Amino acid sequence: MSKVTINCDMGEAFGIYSFGDDEACMPFITHANIACGFHASDPVVMRRTVQTAKKHGIAIGSHPGLPDREGFGRREMKLTREEVSALVIYQTGALKAFVETEGLKLSHIKPHGALFGMAQRQEAIAEGIADAALAFDLPVIAYSDCAMSDVFKRRGVHFTCEFYADLDYDDEGRQIITKEHHAVSSAEVAEKVRRAVLEGLTRSINGRDVRVVAQSICVHSDTPNAIEVAKTVHQALADHL
Amino acid sequence: MSKVTINCDMGEAFGIYSFGDDEACMPFITHANIACGFHASDPVVMRRTVQTAKKHGIAIGSHPGLPDREGFGRREMKLTREEVSALVIYQTGALKAFVETEGLKLSHIKPHGALFGMAQRQEAIAEGIADAALAFDLPVIAYSDCAMSDVFKRRGVHFTCEFYADLDYDDEGRQIITKEHHAVSSAEVAEKVRRAVLEGLTRSINGRDVRVVAQSICVHSDTPNAIEVAKTVHQALADHL
Amino acid sequence: MSKVTINCDMGEAFGIYSFGDDEACMPFITHANIACGFHASDPVVMRRTVQTAKKHGIAIGSHPGLPDREGFGRREMKLTREEVSALVIYQTGALKAFVETEGLKLSHIKPHGALFGMAQRQEAIAEGIADAALAFDLPVIAYSDCAMSDVFKRRGVHFTCEFYADLDYDDEGRQIITKEHHAVSSAEVAEKVRRAVLEGLTRSINGRDVRVVAQSICVHSDTPNAIEVAKTVHQALADHL
Amino acid sequence: MSKVTINCDMGEAFGIYSFGDDEACMPFITHANIACGFHASDPVVMRRTVQTAKKHGIAIGSHPGLPDREGFGRREMKLTREEVSALVIYQTGALKAFVETEGLKLSHIKPHGALFGMAQRQEAIAEGIADAALAFDLPVIAYSDCAMSDVFKRRGVHFTCEFYADLDYDDEGRQIITKEHHAVSSAEVAEKVRRAVLEGLTRSINGRDVRVVAQSICVHSDTPNAIEVAKTVHQALADHL
Repeated sequence: MSKVTINCDMGEAFGIYSFGDDEACMPFITHANIACGFHASDPVVMRRTVQTAKKHGIAIGSHPGLPDREGFGRREMKLTREEVSALVIYQTGALKAFVETEGLKLSHIKPHGALFGMAQRQEAIAEGIADAALAFDLPVIAYSDCAMSDVFKRRGVHFTCEFYADLDYDDEGRQIITKEHHAVSSAEVAEKVRRAVLEGLTRSINGRDVRVVAQSICVHSDTPNAIEVAKTVHQALADHL
Repeated sequence: MSKVTINCDMGEAFGIYSFGDDEACMPFITHANIACGFHASDPVVMRRTVQTAKKHGIAIGSHPGLPDREGFGRREMKLTREEVSALVIYQTGALKAFVETEGLKLSHIKPHGALFGMAQRQEAIAEGIADAALAFDLPVIAYSDCAMSDVFKRRGVHFTCEFYADLDYDDEGRQIITKEHHAVSSAEVAEKVRRAVLEGLTRSINGRDVRVVAQSICVHSDTPNAIEVAKTVHQALADHL
Repeated sequence: MSKVTINCDMGEAFGIYSFGDDEACMPFITHANIACGFHASDPVVMRRTVQTAKKHGIAIGSHPGLPDREGFGRREMKLTREEVSALVIYQTGALKAFVETEGLKLSHIKPHGALFGMAQRQEAIAEGIADAALAFDLPVIAYSDCAMSDVFKRRGVHFTCEFYADLDYDDEGRQIITKEHHAVSSAEVAEKVRRAVLEGLTRSINGRDVRVVAQSICVHSDTPNAIEVAKTVHQALADHL
Repeated sequence: MSKVTINCDMGEAFGIYSFGDDEACMPFITHANIACGFHASDPVVMRRTVQTAKKHGIAIGSHPGLPDREGFGRREMKLTREEVSALVIYQTGALKAFVETEGLKLSHIKPHGALFGMAQRQEAIAEGIADAALAFDLPVIAYSDCAMSDVFKRRGVHFTCEFYADLDYDDEGRQIITKEHHAVSSAEVAEKVRRAVLEGLTRSINGRDVRVVAQSICVHSDTPNAIEVAKTVHQALADHL
């Protein structure tokens, strides 16, 4: 089987406001998705987060979000393909500059929050993200069996499908998004990600086995026991990283 | 004598709001300084402005401003060197992405409004701009005999000094900034820029001849007769462009 | 028959950006809906617009919009009732302060753009607007036969229904929203508003007569011939104002 | 001697970001200065904070700041009197609406951060705040022996002078502003505020006794041991509240 990656959203502080403990999480992940100043972060936080990720030697991707800081990019907005491609290019370009200033190369793009969710269901949004990904010639951390994966396949956008260590799944194999994340049991997380990676299956909230594609495991930094979750996932997948 | 350039701030529309007539101005300038979404513009306007500049074959630079859209980047803010370098890198990186998406290369950086003014007097601000310019290895459109030129010389930042076709000068050879720009006479503009370029002199508002360095002529797009001014400057300097 | 009013969105400039010609329009309207700093305007523009409306002796209402200046409040966002009531109270309170500083009383609330459109279809949005209207004990300029009018009737919110002088209607009697407004013929506008007010009917784009409720005629200030339209409506309804 | 009040800045969370522990602090203060959406907060946070203050029965004032969320209103900006009065009226009006919706009355205005600091030194800024205070007929929590107190006396603006329980003072009796606040000893705080209130004196960082006017004691909610400081001040002044 091919290698698995562990990705985590990072650098979501803003000005005086802190958010999550990026540095404690970094030893246990392979890919940092760094916020780009729209749903969270600012230029100073972005530079600092890039430098911290560099210290830990992990891959750095952009984590572009909707222009809605008050809603943390989690409130859907009606956008056109042209608006989406422009805002992903803008934010990714801004982050890329900090990455290249540190002598590194940008690794990937992972859309944030409602932008990611909209791209799973709306083709125009997925097309806008594809436009940006092709402009930079970068792969996207995406989701399987949805508008996003369909568009990306057709357009030749490279992508990996992610599986959520800390979210529940419904009977269609879709993650169940909640406004706030709750703590999850380490033992269950370990078993859950191992099964998703090795067997391509997860148990839905109704107790059914559903197919999932787990090429990258996503850990949310605002899950209450995020560091423990990251550490557990890292240990569980040690042989596959 | 070396060549002269003509630069103009461009792409300062925002959302539904228009500003100036970029396209009418482009035939008469060599360098477009394109706003980057902080003091003006947004991702969609930036892409459109880059594409228009491409059509006219003119050089494209970033025009980063203060994070103050309401004040159009013309209200001074107390910023640290770290904040300035981060916001110039952020904005320039964002614009660079649109430029490279069009298969072009970013040409230069020109700080906007109060950021430009502060860099003339405050060394820390000039250092922050220098940090960003060196990170991108790009020249800056700057000003002579001030903190900015001192810092840039010491740091090895390439720069050209600009002269304002449509502003008055005081006895120290400093441009007189006014909140709103007034229309200027074409005949006077032609003579003024020729003299600044060829003799390095201009007549101050008190009637004294003062030394100026005119390597790039700046035309403001919100001067009421901006297109006429740009055309006049272009004709007057035709042999030196 | 009862009196008709003429309302127009006003004060939608922002910082250095102008928008429409408010003052030229004011002689021909009875109610100004003044933008409150979210989709457009800023504190200085709000004060200036209130003072201009005062000079013309017209009623002043708040014109709250979505927190999306880049999209001019015309892009739908997924909001809860709690978020909507809070943002309408916030914006209306801010405008009320400028109105009372001038010794006047706030007259009404008219939601802007996508907020108005969402309230026609989503009950939760209409409830949020009702919460705010009841908090201020103010009437709302609204729309007939939709979620907004249903909720307002049930909650006891006073409202008047508006009819658009410069928009086309579909066969269900709904206005057809276009991103940009086009110029309309004065003669047709005069006949159209007279018929809507006196007969409660308008001709749809498919040539059918549909029922409309025209208690307040809305004129858009960004319709190219807005002043002429306002003047025409004012003359056509002179006996009913 | 007249009564003393204890005031604390509150409601400085924003969207998903938390800030300080308002509710734990409220039992020990008499006056809450609630942020108004410019340097911090948003409409939902404002309403929630007003409701919490209501539960604790404390006076509610507006805490307007500069339009600079990224800098938390702590970076000075060059503003005119007209801009300052408009932004204080806007923010205070917005908060007043939430306060009146709860059946309460707004109690006072306390400018935030750099706006407060600028008003101590720049007359035009103090005039702008006075314009707003007089428009609402509200007292201001201010500072003694500075441009602000001079202007307020001349204009007839009611104000109380504040003393900082958790900041050091220089030999001129001015508080020493630091970007981050450090923890302070309870025993020292108790003695310090008692002396400031009863004797009008405090010990400067150089060991000199300097005159201060302590009509309201300010506690910062981002001082690490803020709750303990508030409790200590409350106990020390129990007889004077």
